[in-house]
Amino acid sequence: MNKFWSEIANSIEPYTAGEQPKDKKYIKLNTNENPYSPSVKVLDAIRNAANESLKLYPDPTCNDLKTAIAEYYRLDNEQIFIGNGSDEILAFSFMAFFNPKEKVLFPDITYSFYPVFSDLFNIDYKCVPLDDEFNVQTKLLNEENGGIIISNPNAPTGISLPVSSIEEILKNNTDSVVIIDEAYIDFGGESAYKLINKYENLLVVQTFSKSRSLAGLRVGFAMGNSNLINALVKIKNSFNSYTTGKLALIGAIEAIKDNDYFEMTTKKIIKTREIVVKKLKEMGFWVLDSKANFIFISHPKVNAEKLFIELRSRGILVRYFSKKRIDNFIRISMGEIEDMERFIYEINDII
Amino acid sequence: MNKFWSEIANSIEPYTAGEQPKDKKYIKLNTNENPYSPSVKVLDAIRNAANESLKLYPDPTCNDLKTAIAEYYRLDNEQIFIGNGSDEILAFSFMAFFNPKEKVLFPDITYSFYPVFSDLFNIDYKCVPLDDEFNVQTKLLNEENGGIIISNPNAPTGISLPVSSIEEILKNNTDSVVIIDEAYIDFGGESAYKLINKYENLLVVQTFSKSRSLAGLRVGFAMGNSNLINALVKIKNSFNSYTTGKLALIGAIEAIKDNDYFEMTTKKIIKTREIVVKKLKEMGFWVLDSKANFIFISHPKVNAEKLFIELRSRGILVRYFSKKRIDNFIRISMGEIEDMERFIYEINDII
Repeated sequence: MNKFWSEIANSIEPYTAGEQPKDKKYIKLNTNENPYSPSVKVLDAIRNAANESLKLYPDPTCNDLKTAIAEYYRLDNEQIFIGNGSDEILAFSFMAFFNPKEKVLFPDITYSFYPVFSDLFNIDYKCVPLDDEFNVQTKLLNEENGGIIISNPNAPTGISLPVSSIEEILKNNTDSVVIIDEAYIDFGGESAYKLINKYENLLVVQTFSKSRSLAGLRVGFAMGNSNLINALVKIKNSFNSYTTGKLALIGAIEAIKDNDYFEMTTKKIIKTREIVVKKLKEMGFWVLDSKANFIFISHPKVNAEKLFIELRSRGILVRYFSKKRIDNFIRISMGEIEDMERFIYEINDII
Repeated sequence: MNKFWSEIANSIEPYTAGEQPKDKKYIKLNTNENPYSPSVKVLDAIRNAANESLKLYPDPTCNDLKTAIAEYYRLDNEQIFIGNGSDEILAFSFMAFFNPKEKVLFPDITYSFYPVFSDLFNIDYKCVPLDDEFNVQTKLLNEENGGIIISNPNAPTGISLPVSSIEEILKNNTDSVVIIDEAYIDFGGESAYKLINKYENLLVVQTFSKSRSLAGLRVGFAMGNSNLINALVKIKNSFNSYTTGKLALIGAIEAIKDNDYFEMTTKKIIKTREIVVKKLKEMGFWVLDSKANFIFISHPKVNAEKLFIELRSRGILVRYFSKKRIDNFIRISMGEIEDMERFIYEINDII
């Protein structure tokens, strides 16, 4: 026990983000960043906004960005919440919708931040096992619960759930909030946002960090019934009135408006994924069916941790999780095609 | 009870930030923003950083900004924590250092976010009364507690505590963490940061929003013993790995380096305050002795709420708190001298 730390500071085991090493230049395929630059329209708008007005607080309601997202998805501003990255929104959601002593359900293999949020806010949880092929077993989500959170596509597997399965989960859980974390939805998955008018307990969370190439700005958003959004607003205003800065808001508005660039870059990443998957399968890898900007792979003969270390020594960073069930997999973010060719060359050489 | 909201979302009463109206152009003296632009060096650096690198996550350790602050204050990087505005750091501090059921002490008249943080994290608190002149009574801070938080200069009074009084508080409280919230320290107060090497339980929190004209960027920082900083890092990494964006980090680095501009603008604000205070006293106002970029005033004959409403109708926004002991005061942020002359003219006309 550290005398000056709170009980929670003493006990909590924080989330570990992918490494951001500075010792040398790597081909960085470990944190699911987008290999393409943000839209030039985004960069121009930010440059124009770097002016005297930064002395003033940003709009705490983030109204202009809400309007841009509402137009894009044909929703109302009242159905949208803006946050400092989707992780902040998830943290607020755990506070806004889940209670201590009421078990929250999520898959045993999923985004490893969910158990950390649960521990931080003293919320019970139960991990529901994925099947042997790493699919979510919706029938296991019918037990009494204080909330459900599903990453779709799932991380780190990349496997996606059809919206029909999400609707099945919603039909079986009308008394608790169901959060669908769609950080990677734009790379081939199907968003559940269309269900928010039908299910008052559905919250869909997305981010500008992946498909819109803006990890450096810190913007995420949630879509849901205005009643759920109001709870998030209450929690945010009890934590930090202004979590999203002016330049982040302005950049995000332009990013959502430049749909052509978004379509072009996401399509390129999907195409790259298809090429890489094909080549890895030819090498004998088990490649899970990914609808994300990363893939999760395992080789029957070569140890994954060894692959991770060997790739690192050759200047290629991927992500390895030393965790039961997935400790013989590595996760590879999709980079530019030239970097992926280099990756294919090196991994082929290693095995 | 709202069925889908957590207990805390149902019960919490959020903090109310100063209004940011859009109906017309006001002389805005209500949210303690700086009337002067950020340094041109800050704006140039942000424009240069609006490039492809925004596709990547920011450095989660914020190391370059820590180095810049460490050089400025002659501290070590390990003694510094960076956050998304000082409010986020205060929220993390309540989680990192305070426990439910152990009473945290703060003055009855102070930053109204402290009781909200307490409620949000289910932490008990006790308000210690300021004396009749609104000074902190340090002798009342000797009772057993689970932590102390003092705003210095205090808000909304502007009254500052000498470092000797803070040292007295520290000497009497060696078993709990003492947080000094120095959001307004650069306008004439004396920072307690020099005591962090001597008192392992002292955390000093500052912001770039006020004296460095960067409210729109969202950057704050804390200084303390590395052991306290480590607790904040643990909590942050259990909440949101990247709370401060790339452009915010880069802007803040230039802001701390451009000391000439900082000195010039803070001196101008202090000078403006002296002029305004003198004129208000001549009109019969009781003006508390402010070391902040705002003043807190009361008139023996004119009701403060009426003053607030009348000023608003004349296009000048100030802040009014309908709260016991201070409901006959208004708080006025220091604007540019031309705006303050207009304020003086209008308030004189009203009374």
